[in-house]
Amino acid sequence: MNNRIYFDNAATTYMDPKVLEAMMPYLTERFGNPSSIYSYGRETRLAVENARKTVAKLLNAHPAEIFFTSGGTESDNTAIAAAVRDLGCKRIISSAIEHHAVEHTIDFFKCSNDVEVDYVEVLPDGHIDMQHLEKLLQDAKEKTLVSLMHANNEIGNLLDIDAVGNLCKKYNAYFHADTVQTVGHYPLNLRATPVHFITGAAHKFHGPKGVGILYINENVKINPLIKGGSQERNMRAGTENIYGIVGFAKALEIAMADYETDSKKILGIKNYMAAQLKQHIPEITFNGDTFGNSLYTVLNVSFPKTERSEMILFNLDINNICVSGGSACTSGANQGSHVIRVINKNPNQIPIRFSFSKYNTHEEVDIVVQKLKELL
Amino acid sequence: MNNRIYFDNAATTYMDPKVLEAMMPYLTERFGNPSSIYSYGRETRLAVENARKTVAKLLNAHPAEIFFTSGGTESDNTAIAAAVRDLGCKRIISSAIEHHAVEHTIDFFKCSNDVEVDYVEVLPDGHIDMQHLEKLLQDAKEKTLVSLMHANNEIGNLLDIDAVGNLCKKYNAYFHADTVQTVGHYPLNLRATPVHFITGAAHKFHGPKGVGILYINENVKINPLIKGGSQERNMRAGTENIYGIVGFAKALEIAMADYETDSKKILGIKNYMAAQLKQHIPEITFNGDTFGNSLYTVLNVSFPKTERSEMILFNLDINNICVSGGSACTSGANQGSHVIRVINKNPNQIPIRFSFSKYNTHEEVDIVVQKLKELL
Ligand SMILES: Cc1ncc(COP(=O)(O)O)c(C=O)c1O
Ligand SMILES: Cc1ncc(COP(=O)(O)O)c(C=O)c1O
Repeated sequence: MNNRIYFDNAATTYMDPKVLEAMMPYLTERFGNPSSIYSYGRETRLAVENARKTVAKLLNAHPAEIFFTSGGTESDNTAIAAAVRDLGCKRIISSAIEHHAVEHTIDFFKCSNDVEVDYVEVLPDGHIDMQHLEKLLQDAKEKTLVSLMHANNEIGNLLDIDAVGNLCKKYNAYFHADTVQTVGHYPLNLRATPVHFITGAAHKFHGPKGVGILYINENVKINPLIKGGSQERNMRAGTENIYGIVGFAKALEIAMADYETDSKKILGIKNYMAAQLKQHIPEITFNGDTFGNSLYTVLNVSFPKTERSEMILFNLDINNICVSGGSACTSGANQGSHVIRVINKNPNQIPIRFSFSKYNTHEEVDIVVQKLKELL
Repeated sequence: MNNRIYFDNAATTYMDPKVLEAMMPYLTERFGNPSSIYSYGRETRLAVENARKTVAKLLNAHPAEIFFTSGGTESDNTAIAAAVRDLGCKRIISSAIEHHAVEHTIDFFKCSNDVEVDYVEVLPDGHIDMQHLEKLLQDAKEKTLVSLMHANNEIGNLLDIDAVGNLCKKYNAYFHADTVQTVGHYPLNLRATPVHFITGAAHKFHGPKGVGILYINENVKINPLIKGGSQERNMRAGTENIYGIVGFAKALEIAMADYETDSKKILGIKNYMAAQLKQHIPEITFNGDTFGNSLYTVLNVSFPKTERSEMILFNLDINNICVSGGSACTSGANQGSHVIRVINKNPNQIPIRFSFSKYNTHEEVDIVVQKLKELL
């Protein structure tokens, strides 16, 4: 990864070579259609089913609860559409800091008058106001879906999904948690978590792009979003992306096996970067609950707005340092971040997200902090 | 591909090693998120946009008309949903021999009372009754979508999409052609074809699984099916499957460069197999317009039903010969073929689809015919 410093791991990650190695047979000789009846197709069907078992085991779910999709976005779309169309939800409770995959899907059903939407208040530290959530749930007269993300991809805040799940249980609501930033980064125990839908994307934890999962609690029966053949037990039509599915399972396997070491290492890098920044550029502030309930992978920093800081993303880029302004999908359009706007009303700040992986080092932090000092 | 004879290329194909080679950089070092603003993301964005240009050029379309998806099924779903939701179609004309990706999507809108559906009659040779189609179009009082496949994946029949497109134009209907079996197998000239939506899947022409295209005529404005980030110019949300997209373009490039030679070779194999079968097993019949307007890749044969022919798929499998009973997605479920049921009312027949690729040989045909003779 020649000289480049990649601090944008919440956007996407480098694929672990061991993952690619596991995928290779399915990119070459083992290409048979898993829906075929001959043994050659059974060989790939077995690979898909073994991947499903691996994923289920690692999330402590049942294999019948795991469905492979084309990514986190499709999984989020499927869960929300199913809640509205198949589970009779007439009301959705969500927040203003969700990922667009959730926000825009909810907007769609709101605009078509299928649901009413309530937004739970977000506290200044980026956490959901749990009391407000309970109040909204109490007031619900109609079947309700709560859709709240487990970890925010921009500021890193972690939701207590057990607490939210228990509230949903109490008020008989469905619960969808966008876990795209936590699957592969935290051990999940779905049998002990009161949640109906969670989602994941392999490329967020050193797996391949173009493949994701949707967990659907076994007590929930829904119809597919993508309709057609009977793949994925009629839940997701389309010829299976076998090598992607195999890659998802392998990436999750590695991530969970190395969780203790990797998470400790990455948290060390995050804290070191925060400390170094504070020391060398004391005017900065942190967005979100940075040192509390927060992803160990994400550090979101606000720099005071100056002529120089406005050019900072551009200048970091020139110096081969990859970081993010908003989330990946909005930064391209240069719209700034809808999340930061909600929690930080100060327009005189330039937010930058640094996000780390197991491939990063303290030395890289030193270089980036030094560069920031020079540039500001 | 050790000893196996693979005659199931309409289900999925072996990936051309040159395609994988083109994908490799994007499976390894070039993993940056194309939506990022830094140059590293621009490198992959460029790869995606170059792939789009390549595909557009080869189909004689405008790059702005090409959208990458997760496959043929998603593309079909998107086109049909858009016609109903965004283009105001209250009526769909389709047929009983469409792929399930089309059939089940139409069923969904029919069941939810969004559209009325008329089915155009299918002639005994598997072609659409064009006069009936015109009659249905004449009678249309509401905005109509015509959804008819370019080539049938089971019997190989080819639709005259220019004729259907012109009829649609005359009666002011939208036209969606499922071209999953023809993209990469026939030169398409979309600027000269009156069609609003076509679809493709790379794995049908020696490209990777998990990636497809949707062509949307530039005069048509629709909303995404998969909602979220602003990828694919707001038409398909989700982090781009870069290596898949690069693989799609490369596979199409090779397919079109070698079209003359490959199609001639494959047609030779199909005709040779048909002749050999006729000679050695004279009781067989062919399903569809086998030697007329038909895919050069597909040969669908009915064997008289006997105790032995009922076991034929099973026994071919034991002999390492891969063929298909129904289409891949139904054969797994052993439901037989909904297409054959429509065109062939004789229940005392066992239909088998042989489908060929550039990697097949006359020698393989000899082995398979010999084996069939022994088994029957
Ligand atoms: C929290 C969250 N949800 C959903 C997504 C969408 O995932 P993908 O782009 O892989 O479809 C992302 C990443 O982009 C994310 O960070
Ligand atoms: C005619 C036709 N349409 C659609 C599809 C669906 O394509 P995919 O399975 O790649 O999503 C197929 C193949 O399965 C097909 O043959």
